[in-house]
Amino acid sequence: MSAKPVTVCVDALGGDEPPAVVLEGVALALESDPDLSVIVVGTDDVVTPFAASHERCEAVACTQSISMGEHPLQAIRTKRDSSIVVGSKLVKSGCAQGFFSAGSTGACMAAATLLIGRIPGIDRPALTLALPGKTPTVLLDVGANADCKPLNIVQYGHMGCAYARIVVGVDDPRLGLLNIGSEDTKGSMEAQERFAALRDSVPEFVGNAEGTDILGDSFDVIVTDGFTGNVALKTLEGTARFLMSEVKRAAMASTKGKIGGALLSGQLGDLKQRLSGEMYGGAVLLGVNGVVVIGHGATSPRAVCQGTLVSANAARQDLVGRISAAIS
Amino acid sequence: MSAKPVTVCVDALGGDEPPAVVLEGVALALESDPDLSVIVVGTDDVVTPFAASHERCEAVACTQSISMGEHPLQAIRTKRDSSIVVGSKLVKSGCAQGFFSAGSTGACMAAATLLIGRIPGIDRPALTLALPGKTPTVLLDVGANADCKPLNIVQYGHMGCAYARIVVGVDDPRLGLLNIGSEDTKGSMEAQERFAALRDSVPEFVGNAEGTDILGDSFDVIVTDGFTGNVALKTLEGTARFLMSEVKRAAMASTKGKIGGALLSGQLGDLKQRLSGEMYGGAVLLGVNGVVVIGHGATSPRAVCQGTLVSANAARQDLVGRISAAIS
Repeated sequence: MSAKPVTVCVDALGGDEPPAVVLEGVALALESDPDLSVIVVGTDDVVTPFAASHERCEAVACTQSISMGEHPLQAIRTKRDSSIVVGSKLVKSGCAQGFFSAGSTGACMAAATLLIGRIPGIDRPALTLALPGKTPTVLLDVGANADCKPLNIVQYGHMGCAYARIVVGVDDPRLGLLNIGSEDTKGSMEAQERFAALRDSVPEFVGNAEGTDILGDSFDVIVTDGFTGNVALKTLEGTARFLMSEVKRAAMASTKGKIGGALLSGQLGDLKQRLSGEMYGGAVLLGVNGVVVIGHGATSPRAVCQGTLVSANAARQDLVGRISAAIS
Repeated sequence: MSAKPVTVCVDALGGDEPPAVVLEGVALALESDPDLSVIVVGTDDVVTPFAASHERCEAVACTQSISMGEHPLQAIRTKRDSSIVVGSKLVKSGCAQGFFSAGSTGACMAAATLLIGRIPGIDRPALTLALPGKTPTVLLDVGANADCKPLNIVQYGHMGCAYARIVVGVDDPRLGLLNIGSEDTKGSMEAQERFAALRDSVPEFVGNAEGTDILGDSFDVIVTDGFTGNVALKTLEGTARFLMSEVKRAAMASTKGKIGGALLSGQLGDLKQRLSGEMYGGAVLLGVNGVVVIGHGATSPRAVCQGTLVSANAARQDLVGRISAAIS
């Protein structure tokens, strides 16, 4: 069965890795999805030869790139020919139905908000992930807005529930607020204000969630500000990485362990990737009027491939149109 | 070699488990430390027979207990004969050199602050843990104060570095601020204020830490508010629990896996316990003028044993006196 044809733009200059790593990921995505076309944006010497040697691939050359340390808004305003600005404009003009970048989160967010625009009714976009725990749990915001008002959290609740319905396929999502105790009165003053706002405005809200619930099965959607969400996500990734390395170390410590580790290696490898960030590829910037997916800066071909496919599928599912309809 | 004799008070009514679970933990602690004496506080029917049948154990009967859902300050004021109030008073009076409870964190903190008092120069105490990652990392606050001013964070920095020197044995601790990016300008407005305060006031401060650093080896001490710290700790525990159950599931999925799992089971069991909360037993409430250790509500005999031993060792090391000296 062939999928709906879709064109995604990929930022060849985004991330800490050289463009060759990103392009290797694009090649993997093109191979695995025969109905996908990709526009690669980057310096001429990098993207033109790649596009010439790959089917369903087009090159758009630019002359600038934005580094991780630059001030996002200033970079977007002064670097008009950067890959992030050019890629965002390709989505705005309709040449591409989605944009994937492993570059600066702040710059991608600024470009998306300013150049593509927001969905009506949404003040701030939120970086959104469906985490593969006991059951999938949609977590937002994982890093777009460090400072959030209760109104932003309410909008994240609406968008997160729509995302869970559309992408995860949960009919009646249970929405939780990330907090430090399950009782209604728990948490910081900010958390208590958010609790009241969610209770009064979002029918799917069922109460407070804790850090232990992120990979659990008690909530389908968990909302928080971009500061707390980013700390939680990076703690999760760091813990997974540490534990898997310890399992490996345990397996190397004795002959018995080595045999055991060899027998288990296939499953352990899958598990490691599942929570490494490679499998989810990138976080979707919900709330902007176009599909924008932002990957980890420390990327890999496999992560770029996943991020590109996530963008393509979001475009195919009309994620933005359906989120807009759910919000209005 | 015999250790310095020390008496620790244990709250037999604290936690979600029945008193028998706590007392089993006390028995383990008494067995493993021949220079330890324990005062168990609880209802007469529970503690008196236990003390009668165990050496170096004394019972103090009380008639009330404080549940997890009660308002901490109100509970402390109205329940004068609760195990948490009685235990705190035993430390204040010098009958015990430390107090361990797996009961309500809020009530323990309120009782400790009001009845035992704070170290001069400390406005708010902080729950402190040394997490067993690549190298031990002291994390505070993991849940005492959800709302923190930059001044509190600075005091946490001083106390955390003193704790790393005394308990972990690090001569020159590297102090980090939990944030969402390593660059100096990253984070919420609150995080940026904290960064400036730490940079100006704490010589051990080396910069921003991220969630991935909590189990890493780049920092010896990481400070944050009790909201973010608690979310991070519970995310870490939830991730560890989830991953170990997935490793187990992988090992049960095939005959090959079962053999591999059996060969690795000893090491995997150790690893599971290491990050389960059982091994660190409880968090030390730094900043109060006596040793107070608060365990997980969902406790086990082994966790109670660890928490009791942590309290005993903190008392033996004169943790409070040395933290006071370091602060002044």
